[in-house]
Amino acid sequence: MPDVSWALGRATELAERGPQHGGNPRVGCVLLAADGAVVSEGWHGGAGTAHAEAAALAGADPARLRGATAVVTLEPCHHSGRTPPCSRALHAAGIARVVHAVGDPDPVASGGARWLAGQGVDVLTAEDAGVPVDVTGRAARVSAAWVTAMRRRRPWVVGKSAMSLDGRVAAADGTSRWITGAAARTHAHTVRADVDAVVVGTGTVLTDDPALTARRADGTLACHQPLRVVVGRRAVPPGAALRQAPGDWLHLPTRDLRAALDQLWDAGVRRVLVEGGPTLLSRALREHLVDELHAYLAPVLLGGGLPAVTDLGVSTLAGAPRWRPVTTRTLGEDLLVVAHRPEGDL
Amino acid sequence: MPDVSWALGRATELAERGPQHGGNPRVGCVLLAADGAVVSEGWHGGAGTAHAEAAALAGADPARLRGATAVVTLEPCHHSGRTPPCSRALHAAGIARVVHAVGDPDPVASGGARWLAGQGVDVLTAEDAGVPVDVTGRAARVSAAWVTAMRRRRPWVVGKSAMSLDGRVAAADGTSRWITGAAARTHAHTVRADVDAVVVGTGTVLTDDPALTARRADGTLACHQPLRVVVGRRAVPPGAALRQAPGDWLHLPTRDLRAALDQLWDAGVRRVLVEGGPTLLSRALREHLVDELHAYLAPVLLGGGLPAVTDLGVSTLAGAPRWRPVTTRTLGEDLLVVAHRPEGDL
Repeated sequence: MPDVSWALGRATELAERGPQHGGNPRVGCVLLAADGAVVSEGWHGGAGTAHAEAAALAGADPARLRGATAVVTLEPCHHSGRTPPCSRALHAAGIARVVHAVGDPDPVASGGARWLAGQGVDVLTAEDAGVPVDVTGRAARVSAAWVTAMRRRRPWVVGKSAMSLDGRVAAADGTSRWITGAAARTHAHTVRADVDAVVVGTGTVLTDDPALTARRADGTLACHQPLRVVVGRRAVPPGAALRQAPGDWLHLPTRDLRAALDQLWDAGVRRVLVEGGPTLLSRALREHLVDELHAYLAPVLLGGGLPAVTDLGVSTLAGAPRWRPVTTRTLGEDLLVVAHRPEGDL
Repeated sequence: MPDVSWALGRATELAERGPQHGGNPRVGCVLLAADGAVVSEGWHGGAGTAHAEAAALAGADPARLRGATAVVTLEPCHHSGRTPPCSRALHAAGIARVVHAVGDPDPVASGGARWLAGQGVDVLTAEDAGVPVDVTGRAARVSAAWVTAMRRRRPWVVGKSAMSLDGRVAAADGTSRWITGAAARTHAHTVRADVDAVVVGTGTVLTDDPALTARRADGTLACHQPLRVVVGRRAVPPGAALRQAPGDWLHLPTRDLRAALDQLWDAGVRRVLVEGGPTLLSRALREHLVDELHAYLAPVLLGGGLPAVTDLGVSTLAGAPRWRPVTTRTLGEDLLVVAHRPEGDL
């Protein structure tokens, strides 16, 4: 019979199906009957769609919900936005017990656990419910970027670079197309399709003239398009590809990246991909604004040319922050290393 | 019942147990009785020990060898060295059929297949015996470095670098200990213990003063020690760690790496690890002397400092050779990428 640990692992898998763009966290929910059987499950499919708990409740036989346990990756919301609060919906359905992996850091939506407890519902963290740490850890990671952004009131920033094995983004003569292969480029487009905004500097617009849209391998547009943002004081030329491509774009005429991110936060942007060239990426790194690093490494040595990063303010080895590798995968002949910002460096 | 394809896969696994140092190839052998049952198996444990075929024959019931099939990763030798020729031993034992994955490129030892065929033994390549290409490919790879070295009459060269994710081996102030962590360093010592010679430049001796011995994680010496070689015109100081450490070392007072490798070949060296600093590694790369690249990547960005490679004679991206990734693995927080020299670049 499924138990709470199994249910949280399953809820995590469900949560991972959701998008990371759209301003809402990825959440999964599994409902267990009093006898331990799975009654229903649900996940959040993005802004404007049902929350994970609501989706699970909607798919359940109401008679089996009395005395049931809801296992969720994130504390149920207690706020009426585009959808009604999950706290009230769970209580109304007769749920007797709620187990959640992570508390809701959103000051607007939080309070669900306390309210439910006040109604006599047994509310527990996954840790208190005895779920093993590897399961709670994975459940926590599924919404970690969103939770961190909410706590800091600043977008989660993914910094991307595609470089040679010796850290160059262009050869001595400036040639840079294509260092990485088709599989790596396709993957980079799936990342664009999973953020709220893509940011480049005016230098990249003037040099590479990218459209910055998220495209599939066949060249067609992905379903979700990020807001395309150019930062920097120089003008975006009238004929720029960016202007012709469908979807929203924005020019923030500032070199202050932190101010630009604050402005994007106020516009609802929670997850940002910085994919501008070495100048913008190095500035973001130097100012400790990059939370997650995506390094695409091509199996080629250039021995010179344009470095992927410059001037990080690091003079000695011991002073260089160590990133925390999260995943490494091969993409064709290339390698993708995803790493998170060192703990404490916030 | 085991078949020839299975047997070649098994022979490959056995071959992989052998050392890559010592001047002999890694070879595995499985003997199948006429009814397909496994009679015996063997592998070559290094110079001076029994060849794979001899080891397999020694472990077999002689009565079951009449009409049996020998499946080997490499063509049986036909030369009396420190051990008698395997061709004659197989024939004398009554083996009816020999299947081998790769021909012996050694002009001294080759001819086994032809001689055996002349004795009426059915001799087939694995490909002709219908073994699938993924199995023959893996069997070929187990001795590929040795085979290539033999064909070219030049040692197989492994080039090693431990660098930051942005391709630096030292920070701006010159600090370089330790970019990579303990697991990567331990692994690098197992590579030292699996080559015939380790080569550094005099610059590395003067700067880092390495002992260049192969050591285990606990600091004790590995069973096999490589010949330690210093190339370059400057003198090796009397107090150098290299001089104090046990084992053989050699100073080749030349800057001509190709000539140094020829000299090492004549001394019986078949597999070399170049682990000198950026100057020596870059020279080896520029002269197309590196066959296998070991890049240890630490999850750290330096944004400046000493580049891992310099001046490779590559000016434009299209002119940069693409390496062929063989394996990628994590070592603690670090990453090891092993890649082979692009085909045709010999």
